[in-house]
Amino acid sequence: MPSTDLNQFPVREIARRIAADETTAVAVTEACLARIEAREDNVHAWAFVDPELALKQARACDKQEPRGPLHGVPLGVKDIIDTRDMPTQMGSPVYAGHRPTADAACVALVRAAGAIVLGKTVTTEFAGSHPGPTANPHNSSHTPGGSSSGSAAAVADFMVPAAFGTQTGSSILRPSAYCGVIGYKPTFGTYNISGIKAAAQSLDTLGLHVRDLDDIQLLTSVLVHRPLTPLKAPASSPRVGICRTPLWDFAQPETKAAIEDAATRLAQAGAAVRDVVMPESFACLEAVRIRINCYERSRHMTNEWHDYREALSDRFRAVMQTGLDMPYDEYVAAIRLTEDCRQQSDTLFDGLDVLLAPCVDGEAPRGLAEGGNPRFAGLWTAIRLPAISLPTHAGPNGLPVGIQLVGRYRDDDRLLSVAKWAMEKLRAPTFC
Amino acid sequence: MPSTDLNQFPVREIARRIAADETTAVAVTEACLARIEAREDNVHAWAFVDPELALKQARACDKQEPRGPLHGVPLGVKDIIDTRDMPTQMGSPVYAGHRPTADAACVALVRAAGAIVLGKTVTTEFAGSHPGPTANPHNSSHTPGGSSSGSAAAVADFMVPAAFGTQTGSSILRPSAYCGVIGYKPTFGTYNISGIKAAAQSLDTLGLHVRDLDDIQLLTSVLVHRPLTPLKAPASSPRVGICRTPLWDFAQPETKAAIEDAATRLAQAGAAVRDVVMPESFACLEAVRIRINCYERSRHMTNEWHDYREALSDRFRAVMQTGLDMPYDEYVAAIRLTEDCRQQSDTLFDGLDVLLAPCVDGEAPRGLAEGGNPRFAGLWTAIRLPAISLPTHAGPNGLPVGIQLVGRYRDDDRLLSVAKWAMEKLRAPTFC
Repeated sequence: MPSTDLNQFPVREIARRIAADETTAVAVTEACLARIEAREDNVHAWAFVDPELALKQARACDKQEPRGPLHGVPLGVKDIIDTRDMPTQMGSPVYAGHRPTADAACVALVRAAGAIVLGKTVTTEFAGSHPGPTANPHNSSHTPGGSSSGSAAAVADFMVPAAFGTQTGSSILRPSAYCGVIGYKPTFGTYNISGIKAAAQSLDTLGLHVRDLDDIQLLTSVLVHRPLTPLKAPASSPRVGICRTPLWDFAQPETKAAIEDAATRLAQAGAAVRDVVMPESFACLEAVRIRINCYERSRHMTNEWHDYREALSDRFRAVMQTGLDMPYDEYVAAIRLTEDCRQQSDTLFDGLDVLLAPCVDGEAPRGLAEGGNPRFAGLWTAIRLPAISLPTHAGPNGLPVGIQLVGRYRDDDRLLSVAKWAMEKLRAPTFC
Repeated sequence: MPSTDLNQFPVREIARRIAADETTAVAVTEACLARIEAREDNVHAWAFVDPELALKQARACDKQEPRGPLHGVPLGVKDIIDTRDMPTQMGSPVYAGHRPTADAACVALVRAAGAIVLGKTVTTEFAGSHPGPTANPHNSSHTPGGSSSGSAAAVADFMVPAAFGTQTGSSILRPSAYCGVIGYKPTFGTYNISGIKAAAQSLDTLGLHVRDLDDIQLLTSVLVHRPLTPLKAPASSPRVGICRTPLWDFAQPETKAAIEDAATRLAQAGAAVRDVVMPESFACLEAVRIRINCYERSRHMTNEWHDYREALSDRFRAVMQTGLDMPYDEYVAAIRLTEDCRQQSDTLFDGLDVLLAPCVDGEAPRGLAEGGNPRFAGLWTAIRLPAISLPTHAGPNGLPVGIQLVGRYRDDDRLLSVAKWAMEKLRAPTFC
C-alpha cells in the first residue's frame, strides 16, 4: 500500500502498524502533511502547522522504544488548548502569537502515550459563534460548523485520524455531523480540561472527533488512564428510546428523515425501540444553557473585556454584554434548573440503554458566516450527559446529516457500545 | 487617626474613606507595606511584593475617578492565581519566575472595581500539602495551616484587609481558623476560577480570607456582579443544627469545647439549636475526597510530572503516584458518592438555616513542616456546600480555634446572614 494512504487509517491501525514495524511515524506524518498540503487551501482547517516541527516529533518517535499506545500517531489539537511548542491563538487577534508555557493536561497525556501533535486546528473566536476561515470539506461553500471547526474538518478530510474538540453547546457534535465524522462528548468532567481556555466552566467538556468508534475507546484509555478493553457490541438487543425533544419543529426534513429512518432500521436490526417524551421542565433547557454560557463567559473574559475589547468581534461583545447585564439570581436559577433536569434525566432512560435524538437542524448551511444552530446538542450538554454523533445519513445537497445517541449520566461505556452496534447496522454513507 | 492604622480597617471602611476623600489609596497602601516591612521577616506571608508596583497602582487610583466599590483597596492574591504584572510561582521551583500573560478572572474583576493587587501570597506547593515558609502570625513556631497559608496569615497580621484563597479540601477554612480570621468557601462554582492553577477541578473553589463578615458581601458583589445589599442578621431566630460529624473523635478538646460552647451560647442568644446526625453514607466522604484529589491532580499535572518530576516534593510525587495507580472506576465511584451525598445533604438542613460543625482538629500544630489535617472542612468541600470559619475561640496555647458554619447548597446568603448574627453573639477573642 502506498504511503500516501496512511493518512486514511484510524488511530488504532496507525498505532498497530508502527508498533509492528510495518510503517513509521515519519511515513504517517508525511502522509498527513501531504494531505494538508494538497487540501488546506480549500479547507483551512489549521491555525498552525509547522511540518518540520511535526516531523521532528515523528523522527524522535521512530528512534525511541514505543512510549505508549499512541506511539507515532499524529493528532490535531483545537486552538484553545495549550501547547508548549506551538502558539495557542484562540481564534482571536487578542492571542495572536501567544505561546503558553506548558501543555494542557490532555496534550501532555497523549504525548506521554507517544502521540505527535500535528498542529493546532481552527477554532471559532474563543470557541464562540464568530467563525474562523474553515470550510466544509465536502463543499467549501458550506460551513463546517463550530466551534471545533478545524478539528472536525481535518478529521473528515483525512488530514489527521483524530482531533481534540471541546463542547459548551454543540461544538463537537455539530461540526462532526456537518463534516461527516464521529463526534464524542463524554459525560461532563470525564477528560481533564486543565490548560484549556474556558468558555463556560459549568458546561465545558473536552471530547473527540474521530472516523472510527474504536478510536474513542483507545484515546479514552490514555486520557483517563485505564486499561484498553476493546469496544464490543452489547450482549443483548439494545434498547433505544426515540427522543424527538421539544425542539422537533426546528428539525429540517433531512434530520426528521434521518431519525425516523434510523429508528426503523435499528428496530429491524433487533433493537427494542420506543418513544420517549421529555418532561415539560426540559423545554427551556437550551435557553437556560445559553444564559449560563453568557453569564460565565462574561466573568471568564473580564481581562480581555477590559483590555482588548476592540479586538473582540461584535458578536462576542454582544454575548459578553448579555452576560454582564444578567442578574446573578437569574444565573443561579439557570444552574439549578440544569441540575434538577440532570437528576430527572435518569428517568428518561428507564428500561433503555440510549436515546436517539436529532443532532443538528439539518445539513450544514450554505456560507461560512454562520455555523448553524447549537440547540439539538446543546440540550444534552446543559445536563452533562454523554453524547455521540454518528454520520449515518445525507441531506438534499449530498452533505452529511448526523444522528445523535445520548447516554445516561456517566454511562459512557454503554453509549459507545450501542453506538458501535448502531453504526454497523446503519452502514454510513461514504463520509468516514 | 495616624495613617499607620489604615492597614487595620476592613475593606469596606478603606473603600469608604477613600471615596469620601478622608484618605488616599497611597496612604492605605503605604500603611499595608509598612506593616509588611515590620512583620514579614517573622510571618513570611508573601511570595512576591514589589512596593513600587503596589504604589504605582495606588497613585493611579488617586488620580482617577473611582472605578468601582473597591477603589484603592489593597488585596492579597494567592500565588496559584494568575496575575499579568507579577510572577505566579505556585509554591514550586517548576514555576520560578513564571509570568502569566493575563489576569485570572477574579483578579481582573477586582481590578476593574478599583482594587490594588498588593502582592502574591505564599501557597503550599501547587496548593497541596508541602508547606511554604509562612509562619502563624500569633506564634511563629506554629503552622499557619495551608494551602492558602500566606493569604490567611497576611490578613490575620493586618498586612492586607482581605485576600483570595482557594479550597480543594480545607485550604481556606483551616488556615483561617489557625490564624484567627474569617474564611469563606462559597458554594462550588460561585466565584469564577478561570486563570487559577487547578488542583482537583471537581472540588476547587475560590474564596476569601477577611477580618470582617461584611467584606464578604462587598467582594461577592464585585465577583459575581450583583448589587451590594448590606449583610443583615436574620429576621427571626436562627435555626442551627449541631453536626459533630463521624469525625468527632478526631477533634481535640479545644475544638470540642468550642463547638459545645458555641452551641450553648447561640441557644442562650435565642437560636433554635438541635443535634443533627449525618447519614452513614457520609462517613467515608473525606476518604473519598482524598481519592478524587489524587486522581484529578495526577491528570492535571501530567506536564509537570513528565518534564519536572525531580522538582516536585516527595510528598507531591506520592500524591501523583497514588492518583496514577488508581483505577478509573474507583474515581468514578468516588465522584458518584459525592454527588449522591450532595443531594442527600438537603435533608440535613430540614428545618434548619445552618449547621455548626468542627472546622479544625484543634489549635494550629507546632512546627512549620505539617499544616494540620483537612478532614473537618474537607467533608463539606466534597459535597460542594458553602462554609465559613469564624475565629470565635482559643486553645490551650492561646492560639485561635475556629468554628465552622455550613450552609445549604447555594444558600450562601442565609449562611452569611446567620454567621453575622453568630459572630455578634459569640464575641470573638481579639484575633480580628
